[in-house]
Amino acid sequence: MKALYFDGTKIALRDDYPEPKSGEALVKVKLAGICGTDLEMIRGYMSYDGVLGHEFVGVVEKSDNPNLVGKRVVGEINAGCGKCNYCTTGLERHCPNRTVLGILKRDGAFAEYLVLPEKNLHVIPDSISDRQAVFVEPLAAAFEINEQLRIEPNQKIAIIGDGRLAQLIARVLRLNNSHITCFGRHQNKLQMLQKIGIDTKTQITSADEHQFDIVVEATGRESGFSDTMRLVKPRGVIVLKSTMASKNKLDFAPAIINEITIVGSRCGPFRPAINALASGLVLVDDLISAVYPISDYQKAFEEAAKSENLKILLEP
Amino acid sequence: MKALYFDGTKIALRDDYPEPKSGEALVKVKLAGICGTDLEMIRGYMSYDGVLGHEFVGVVEKSDNPNLVGKRVVGEINAGCGKCNYCTTGLERHCPNRTVLGILKRDGAFAEYLVLPEKNLHVIPDSISDRQAVFVEPLAAAFEINEQLRIEPNQKIAIIGDGRLAQLIARVLRLNNSHITCFGRHQNKLQMLQKIGIDTKTQITSADEHQFDIVVEATGRESGFSDTMRLVKPRGVIVLKSTMASKNKLDFAPAIINEITIVGSRCGPFRPAINALASGLVLVDDLISAVYPISDYQKAFEEAAKSENLKILLEP
Repeated sequence: MKALYFDGTKIALRDDYPEPKSGEALVKVKLAGICGTDLEMIRGYMSYDGVLGHEFVGVVEKSDNPNLVGKRVVGEINAGCGKCNYCTTGLERHCPNRTVLGILKRDGAFAEYLVLPEKNLHVIPDSISDRQAVFVEPLAAAFEINEQLRIEPNQKIAIIGDGRLAQLIARVLRLNNSHITCFGRHQNKLQMLQKIGIDTKTQITSADEHQFDIVVEATGRESGFSDTMRLVKPRGVIVLKSTMASKNKLDFAPAIINEITIVGSRCGPFRPAINALASGLVLVDDLISAVYPISDYQKAFEEAAKSENLKILLEP
Repeated sequence: MKALYFDGTKIALRDDYPEPKSGEALVKVKLAGICGTDLEMIRGYMSYDGVLGHEFVGVVEKSDNPNLVGKRVVGEINAGCGKCNYCTTGLERHCPNRTVLGILKRDGAFAEYLVLPEKNLHVIPDSISDRQAVFVEPLAAAFEINEQLRIEPNQKIAIIGDGRLAQLIARVLRLNNSHITCFGRHQNKLQMLQKIGIDTKTQITSADEHQFDIVVEATGRESGFSDTMRLVKPRGVIVLKSTMASKNKLDFAPAIINEITIVGSRCGPFRPAINALASGLVLVDDLISAVYPISDYQKAFEEAAKSENLKILLEP
């Protein structure tokens, strides 16, 4: 099969074929999405060596569970050991022995086939198209904020960033809050946010300082953290969705004096993401910039890295 | 009067006399406590220039409120402007125009007299001795953790540190939780914790790693943050009580991957602190290492800086 393999320094197509173990399903990938994490990984983040890709929709080709075979599915990317304290208390996403699809010790979705535990798979209703279904995984990461925080309808929210993840976070948070401002740099992306009722600004001015109850960092830029500190109110909450924001080592003293709460936020729950897409509460079609066959991976990765683009999809 | 003045480089006694403005009371200080913050300030933290000291008990000598005159009081140290959004919404402790007793633009408690707004003062019941009353302010800072977090009785708590603040935090948190471990370096201090039912350890071993739901950093040491990251569970909470812990710039990526919540925590509510002392639920007498007349300030500060000592009090 065709699989996009990263050997730690470069990506290239290979012809491996994954074999499911007991409890695992073989999934034929229909579409996969390129995420900021993929771009960081080919720059060396995570020291990963394997097939890339963790956002996908596919069809189950082989499984011990007859209810899954032939079904269109998306998949949770963290595969826990199933035995440890985390796995047995609902924290499988944090299992210390986990594999993570396309990120950690498990070949990913930029391939004709992938393998995941059957319990990781969610069957997708017909009302969700393939192109929409690829967004379930990153949309779940946006819904994770609702799992971690109780956000009141009258709280003021700032989102820093206007890219792939920021767009999804804005779409999720506006379901329960109409006081959201996105700070971004790209007019085309900010216009998309304006269309769904989000206030947008191209820079942080003194009038914005310490005005927001909740500030979500979703830029993937190293300056992210200091911007959140400018915007957040004393006793407010900062949500960090991007590991990049931590690279520019943080000075934490103001966060203690102002009693800021900082929440690290990563993968999230698939069910609300699937429901939001199925019901049309969250629309994502406008976020797709292009679809490339997997053989055009070089062009696809180039386009994904361009700041004017949003989601680039790969078709195996 | 005698007042211990810090001019930015050294401390010395001066003979100033504070004059209360409208709405302020003149308080004759009976006893004051030396805090870790005072020790940091004479090393240059906060660039403060004025009379030091913010933990005290005293008697109101002058006030427009006849119910206060002659009463024994302690005082909240943050004096807000009274007009801004913070002050009018219960967040006076975070007023951007605040003065802070002995810390920011307001002469402090290492003096025969101090001045604070009347609304900052709390009358102390007779059941609390002067020596105990000096602990209201730092004890309130410990109670602040309960204001910020909901701690379940079955959660595992680690406190890093065994000094003044750690001792108070342990005494407060054990009121609702019996799974507390203190990590400290001083046998005499750890024994005091053992006496009140706290488990103690002198070092962090691999068996402690990622075992705690809540980790409170109260060492005042720069290594504090990395120790909290070793101890905290994925999705756990770190409470930073000491600004020192932030000096050794933080690498935040693991906190995002493990979805850690980090809470900066500073001053707290006086009422539960007063109640806990009045009812004997929290005992503090054993935390007093010595009492010095203010004229012996040099000796007092030397003793306060010694790691074997806990609270040193000054008597004006």
